Amino acid sequence: MNLQLTPEGRLKHLLTIDGLPRHLLIELLDTAQSLSNIALRANKKLPLLRGRTVMNLFFEASTRTRTTFALAAERLSADVVNIDVSTSSTSKGESLLDTLATLHAMHCDMFVVRHADSGAAHFIAEHAPEGVSVLNAGDGRHAHPTQALLDVYTIRRHKPDFSALTVAIVGDVMHSRVARSELLALGTLRVGELRVVGPRTLIPPGLEEMGVRVCTDMAEGVAGADVIIMLRLQRERMRGAFLPSEGEYYRRYGLTPERLKLAKPDCIVMHPGPMNRGVEIASEVADGPHSVILEQVSNGLAVRMAVMAHILGAQVPVMEAA
Amino acid sequence: MNLQLTPEGRLKHLLTIDGLPRHLLIELLDTAQSLSNIALRANKKLPLLRGRTVMNLFFEASTRTRTTFALAAERLSADVVNIDVSTSSTSKGESLLDTLATLHAMHCDMFVVRHADSGAAHFIAEHAPEGVSVLNAGDGRHAHPTQALLDVYTIRRHKPDFSALTVAIVGDVMHSRVARSELLALGTLRVGELRVVGPRTLIPPGLEEMGVRVCTDMAEGVAGADVIIMLRLQRERMRGAFLPSEGEYYRRYGLTPERLKLAKPDCIVMHPGPMNRGVEIASEVADGPHSVILEQVSNGLAVRMAVMAHILGAQVPVMEAA
Amino acid sequence: MNLQLTPEGRLKHLLTIDGLPRHLLIELLDTAQSLSNIALRANKKLPLLRGRTVMNLFFEASTRTRTTFALAAERLSADVVNIDVSTSSTSKGESLLDTLATLHAMHCDMFVVRHADSGAAHFIAEHAPEGVSVLNAGDGRHAHPTQALLDVYTIRRHKPDFSALTVAIVGDVMHSRVARSELLALGTLRVGELRVVGPRTLIPPGLEEMGVRVCTDMAEGVAGADVIIMLRLQRERMRGAFLPSEGEYYRRYGLTPERLKLAKPDCIVMHPGPMNRGVEIASEVADGPHSVILEQVSNGLAVRMAVMAHILGAQVPVMEAA
Repeated sequence: MNLQLTPEGRLKHLLTIDGLPRHLLIELLDTAQSLSNIALRANKKLPLLRGRTVMNLFFEASTRTRTTFALAAERLSADVVNIDVSTSSTSKGESLLDTLATLHAMHCDMFVVRHADSGAAHFIAEHAPEGVSVLNAGDGRHAHPTQALLDVYTIRRHKPDFSALTVAIVGDVMHSRVARSELLALGTLRVGELRVVGPRTLIPPGLEEMGVRVCTDMAEGVAGADVIIMLRLQRERMRGAFLPSEGEYYRRYGLTPERLKLAKPDCIVMHPGPMNRGVEIASEVADGPHSVILEQVSNGLAVRMAVMAHILGAQVPVMEAA
Repeated sequence: MNLQLTPEGRLKHLLTIDGLPRHLLIELLDTAQSLSNIALRANKKLPLLRGRTVMNLFFEASTRTRTTFALAAERLSADVVNIDVSTSSTSKGESLLDTLATLHAMHCDMFVVRHADSGAAHFIAEHAPEGVSVLNAGDGRHAHPTQALLDVYTIRRHKPDFSALTVAIVGDVMHSRVARSELLALGTLRVGELRVVGPRTLIPPGLEEMGVRVCTDMAEGVAGADVIIMLRLQRERMRGAFLPSEGEYYRRYGLTPERLKLAKPDCIVMHPGPMNRGVEIASEVADGPHSVILEQVSNGLAVRMAVMAHILGAQVPVMEAA
Repeated sequence: MNLQLTPEGRLKHLLTIDGLPRHLLIELLDTAQSLSNIALRANKKLPLLRGRTVMNLFFEASTRTRTTFALAAERLSADVVNIDVSTSSTSKGESLLDTLATLHAMHCDMFVVRHADSGAAHFIAEHAPEGVSVLNAGDGRHAHPTQALLDVYTIRRHKPDFSALTVAIVGDVMHSRVARSELLALGTLRVGELRVVGPRTLIPPGLEEMGVRVCTDMAEGVAGADVIIMLRLQRERMRGAFLPSEGEYYRRYGLTPERLKLAKPDCIVMHPGPMNRGVEIASEVADGPHSVILEQVSNGLAVRMAVMAHILGAQVPVMEAA
């Protein structure tokens, strides 16, 4: 946990939201706010990371996530190298540590890592040489910290007073690194009421003790909510004992226009994407006035730029809206 | 059609040659002329699109075409992101519109799109948000407008007076987006005589009414021509009823040195590549003094730079030859 | 051979170490020395190749090698285009020469080529137009000149007086383009004693006549050595008649701590990577104080930058250590 902080309390790596001090989290959101305005300008580049190299090290393919990190780095003027490790020389029988040591020797400044195994980003950060930072872009079921940051950033733009909010996270919380990181971020920001909603088999034990309200009934879960965060249903879970069927899941937990009426009138609806329309969310809701789903994508760029700039020690100027 | 023009009559998207005003087409060729000189300098970069982002969105793989668009954008100092959609999250069951909306939310300025379905570029342009331009890099059998522009640009460099020219397009016109776009561009530039040459089964109906001369005999088709444009033969057509065999096709429509002698003595020979030597064109002709096939590739870069700069509103300086 | 030199004796291409004059080789090492210091700065970029285009043309996949060349070019501010030819339009039946001619027409300045066939880089250089340079990144069993340059550069940083050195190259010399290039470079730099060590079946004939000492016994091979270069064992050789088994190979030629004790006390151990730990080298040796294996990777960047800058005629400033 403390691995990701310098002795002075700044971010060295971003591996998890767990243990991230509240003031640091807020500083990152403020920096993202400043950076979000440049995406609307014709010239989207800032010279903050000129001459730095960011390596996208994706052990698990994700074109979309890799693209947002690459764009974030390029807009800060960094050089970007994409390495798809599944096709690289690990297949030649080389160990992960040897691959990493080799990549480190190329003097990159930051590794953006995505891996199917929980703990992979920590492992890689532990073995990184002095001066190299690791940014977790999703590791197994463990953490997806930049997704959580962009989510709380999106919430704050609409509803700045977290203490007054009721936030409901709906779906397969058990297997979701997104939900895990969101719960931690929303807890750190002292959200008024935090709920998880889903079938009992998909809710990890022990959440009640952390002050989270667990609802197995969707109507109860979204009633009076200010923010509803829908999780992506991993269809492969359907085949196991966890879930009955897509139709049955939608009938019980799908976010329909009718259910959305139970929430606050100005409730916002979020989803990390990609969506399964008609499985976890109705199209009318996904495309409706409460949805901020595409705004999340735009905010993801600003938040990733903020994290990269903070970690690499760049001074981000305060920027006014255009 | 008008989708691609702003109310002021400038290009917003480039989807098709159809409906493109003559003066605009000529302006693009003039801009390309100005830009073509920088490819010969040691420093090939112009800062015209600095801070802009161009996304290559290829639903149909084409390393060569993608590379020319990427090089064109980089030489204008834009940032380039390559997305091979066949390997991206559309495979996760996401709809095309959701994928597009997500990519739009990343605030790119231009999408270069290639797709196997006719009309895909139009569809994507219709759903693009304000301020985002779409450049058609080939959609199904419909259009390939930058190929047509580079072809007429190449012709103009050799033979500036279009009204005096006889141009013959030879091959599978029916299934060729290149031919369709060339016919429109040459018509707009008021070429003296326009011919298509090939087996009746591969000539679309209705061309005669458009003033195009249809020749099923190769000798007649190339007789007295100033320009011969050979189309690539899609070998998969061979298996259907359309064509007899490669040997038979070459015997009837292959451009041999003997047939080339029927054309004007200073006739130029073009091909969009990649060539099937010995099927649609003899090697002696492809590599001979009449061939401008490689010049077409070089000109493709200048033309694509011109289109990008025009669409994104950059002021292209008039540049002298080095 | 002379294909790679200009009439003035400067490098035009880098295809092989064979025939490279000693003073030129030393000039490249000196330039690399100057450039190596910038990798340690926060801003790693030099504007030496701004506006130039380097195309990575890999007919044989190698993420690692391609990445080092891409990083080297980017740190010199060149634009980089990666082309994986196995997936490109050569599959559409186009000939290699047509593919090359098309790529040349895009006005790139340098092609970095890797190919499974010996002689491929020469062939490509022979067919390159005026003003286009070819850099061999490994062709079949023939040559891997930048690997040899980075190896002698690494040796020189530790042991500047080549005439006093005993260097042993251990392993499958017969099938190794790395070994072939290293033998030439070390010969040109007039190393005191040059040895190859391995089973007789994996040592090419005729080395003794070139002044190389051939040792089939590992103890004899490493005795008193200043530098030991381990080659990667191609596991696919194991299946043929060449080698008994991995265990047997390690027992006879693996570099163990015990065997390393036979070398000079300040002996350095090298390996081009990726390593087969427990096959050609013991982990204690690979990670031990004598190993300079990761330094080789870092030096590879500086050497590749030096070669690119030299070939493209950039004036490299003398840089002090940070």
